[in-house]
Amino acid sequence: MGERLIVIGADAAGMSAASQARKRRDHRDLEILAFEKSAHTSYSACGIPYWIGGLVDQQDDLIARTAEQHRDRHIDVRIGRTVTSIDVRNRTVTVDDDSTHEFDQLMIATGGKPKRPDWPGIDANGVHGVQTLDDGEAVSASIRHTKAKRAVVIGGGYIGVEMAEALIRHDLQVTLLERGDQPMHTLDPDMGALVAQALRDYGVDVRTGVTVKGIETRDGWARAVTTDDGTFDADVVVLGLGTTPNSQLAADAGLPIGPTGGIVTDRRMRLPGHEGFWAAGDCVEVLHRVTGRPAAIPLGTHANKQGRVAGINIGGGYASFPGVVGTAVSKICDLEIARTGLQEKEAEAAGFAYATATIESHTVAGYYPDAAKVTVKLLAEKSTGRLLGGQIVGGAGGAKRIDVLAVAIWNQMTVEEMTGLDLGYAPPFSPVWDPVLVAARAVSDALRA
Amino acid sequence: MGERLIVIGADAAGMSAASQARKRRDHRDLEILAFEKSAHTSYSACGIPYWIGGLVDQQDDLIARTAEQHRDRHIDVRIGRTVTSIDVRNRTVTVDDDSTHEFDQLMIATGGKPKRPDWPGIDANGVHGVQTLDDGEAVSASIRHTKAKRAVVIGGGYIGVEMAEALIRHDLQVTLLERGDQPMHTLDPDMGALVAQALRDYGVDVRTGVTVKGIETRDGWARAVTTDDGTFDADVVVLGLGTTPNSQLAADAGLPIGPTGGIVTDRRMRLPGHEGFWAAGDCVEVLHRVTGRPAAIPLGTHANKQGRVAGINIGGGYASFPGVVGTAVSKICDLEIARTGLQEKEAEAAGFAYATATIESHTVAGYYPDAAKVTVKLLAEKSTGRLLGGQIVGGAGGAKRIDVLAVAIWNQMTVEEMTGLDLGYAPPFSPVWDPVLVAARAVSDALRA
Repeated sequence: MGERLIVIGADAAGMSAASQARKRRDHRDLEILAFEKSAHTSYSACGIPYWIGGLVDQQDDLIARTAEQHRDRHIDVRIGRTVTSIDVRNRTVTVDDDSTHEFDQLMIATGGKPKRPDWPGIDANGVHGVQTLDDGEAVSASIRHTKAKRAVVIGGGYIGVEMAEALIRHDLQVTLLERGDQPMHTLDPDMGALVAQALRDYGVDVRTGVTVKGIETRDGWARAVTTDDGTFDADVVVLGLGTTPNSQLAADAGLPIGPTGGIVTDRRMRLPGHEGFWAAGDCVEVLHRVTGRPAAIPLGTHANKQGRVAGINIGGGYASFPGVVGTAVSKICDLEIARTGLQEKEAEAAGFAYATATIESHTVAGYYPDAAKVTVKLLAEKSTGRLLGGQIVGGAGGAKRIDVLAVAIWNQMTVEEMTGLDLGYAPPFSPVWDPVLVAARAVSDALRA
Repeated sequence: MGERLIVIGADAAGMSAASQARKRRDHRDLEILAFEKSAHTSYSACGIPYWIGGLVDQQDDLIARTAEQHRDRHIDVRIGRTVTSIDVRNRTVTVDDDSTHEFDQLMIATGGKPKRPDWPGIDANGVHGVQTLDDGEAVSASIRHTKAKRAVVIGGGYIGVEMAEALIRHDLQVTLLERGDQPMHTLDPDMGALVAQALRDYGVDVRTGVTVKGIETRDGWARAVTTDDGTFDADVVVLGLGTTPNSQLAADAGLPIGPTGGIVTDRRMRLPGHEGFWAAGDCVEVLHRVTGRPAAIPLGTHANKQGRVAGINIGGGYASFPGVVGTAVSKICDLEIARTGLQEKEAEAAGFAYATATIESHTVAGYYPDAAKVTVKLLAEKSTGRLLGGQIVGGAGGAKRIDVLAVAIWNQMTVEEMTGLDLGYAPPFSPVWDPVLVAARAVSDALRA
């Protein structure tokens, strides 16, 4: 009288769910069958830029668990197989080998879809997204094949700046094209400007306010990127334009899609109105705890948490996903970048009246070796005084301080109360006033002003 | 019709108060007169081990503001002057030059008093506490004078382990004598054992369960430390036995002293029942937010915060000190050590029933360069599930994660809720599950077991 769980997508969310469900129900009680369109399971997509850049030795290092390892735990993973449709009424999925499979429980973990504009030349050799391990391999192959000297990265988000670093490590001349005023548009422009300056100091040719028109090709290979601001020669072109929820399969089946384009779930990762249907990872939208509105935030750590929640519930336990506050960190060479909560444009869009303050401090006591500069910007709501968001740009040890802000936002702390927080202090770790506390004091003052 | 503020002790707490009061009231409205028994004002005592160890170049680097700089802001600091008594009724202080000074407001910031047992030989040359800049200079002079080869550090607390590192940097053979089962008694013994092992790996001869009996001397200089477990040769002896609140002056004046031996204040750092009397820093006791009981925790960051609160209030503003959760961090060579909240023996003493879990993880993604091991131990209350305490021992980037735990404890979060926290994730900063989250999951499971 066993059930069958079908998992669509065998990466972070899907396989976390499968593992948790398996932990609670053995294979006689729950058969688990997973379909994965790529050649790999359970890998760290976030690690790809570091592998391309040579900081991570081998592709295998990024794979947490292979299909064989999953099979050893009675999770039957079929790699290289794409689910082409879901029949909600009959509870079946159809696969690209024309097979059809019944399910009792369905876990949709179809991930994100990299934005890929319809530019002329976009499909040329040497033009790459950076989402899958195959993409990573292809970038490396292009660099070797073309004996590349010049690279253009299109888009200045996380993947864009991380890939800029990876390409610098290959001694390429790197140009970063960004449509907006500054790279890292998840930061406010004043903080993004610090990132732009650092990129330039590292030798990246940062061009902002640039609209790409297409890719020039020769013999099927990319040769240059054409824009409204001139043409940029390129042996390799990397697309870092972000992703959208890959929810088409669910939408085609009539399953609920929200305003962000992500699949709608409840807090236990169930599809409302569809018993036994679950979804998790980059394909879903989740509660943003600051705005109270849904948000689609593609990030491995969310995918893992949501997958775990779904799996515990499928396994008969109880777990719920509490939402996000928008925390993200990144690193380019020595520069650390972090944000949480709302940036100014998000706070405005959500209708908050807010004050801001930006301070400069050091990552450790100013007199301690390797003290690095760090800039912290905070937003606080005018009426309640609570922290709405924070951004950090600085040297080693700066970015993970974002966690203090994330936990403070989570608990709806006021910036005034934050000034008293008992954070760890010793000269190798912090000035006597942690930069986060200095910033909390500054924005408290700004609220009173 | 101006008032006079007298400040006793011109270090972190006293001068933070003076600065904040001055910011709000000019010198015609408020005269500020400060007495400092040492030769220096506003210095970082916490930096002394790093200066002795050569990580900080110059003594001056540790001085945030000199007496002259304070005088430029109309804060009259008299260095090398000790206040010998307070006349509460007549509102005067007497100084060791037999002068007497009236006050309207009195700020008591007499700091901590290093424990200095009545051992034979304790006053010999070459035996040093590490509290003031003068102490730091004396240790360095002793090392030079004796061409020291062997050092004994007595006491395995923060100062003890930090001094062990400083002395290793001078290529001394270092023995650390600790009375308890493990060094770092602010950690549980299982976590302290990790510190002991690391110290041994760095070449420190760690002896635990050892009771010191005295110092052997020759020609007035220390030659060895005698214990119940043998005699340890020493050219230099460093005392790291902790401090107690230096509250004798206040006690002699009949001012309120609490159960910890610290001066009693309210949240605004006022002495209850004594209008215009204030105290802050290592000489006071404060609310421990987890036990709800008073605690005396000597730490520069608390002294600065409390001094600031007192100064704002003296200046006519409103500020309050919210108490502490017992956060502390330290570092010995590459090993980072941190704790917050209650350790097991404190939780027992406070009457909590609790569960614990200890996990091992990495500071960054396991595949990323320089991923270091980190061990996290959490305590959670059985009935409520809330986090009571946390301890971290590990490599670079480990210790400051204590801040996440500190903010969680501050907000009385349950460990179950913590498993969903939106902490910063990217491979150079964290595994996909931050070690703190892994630990929260483990202790959640332990609560249910």
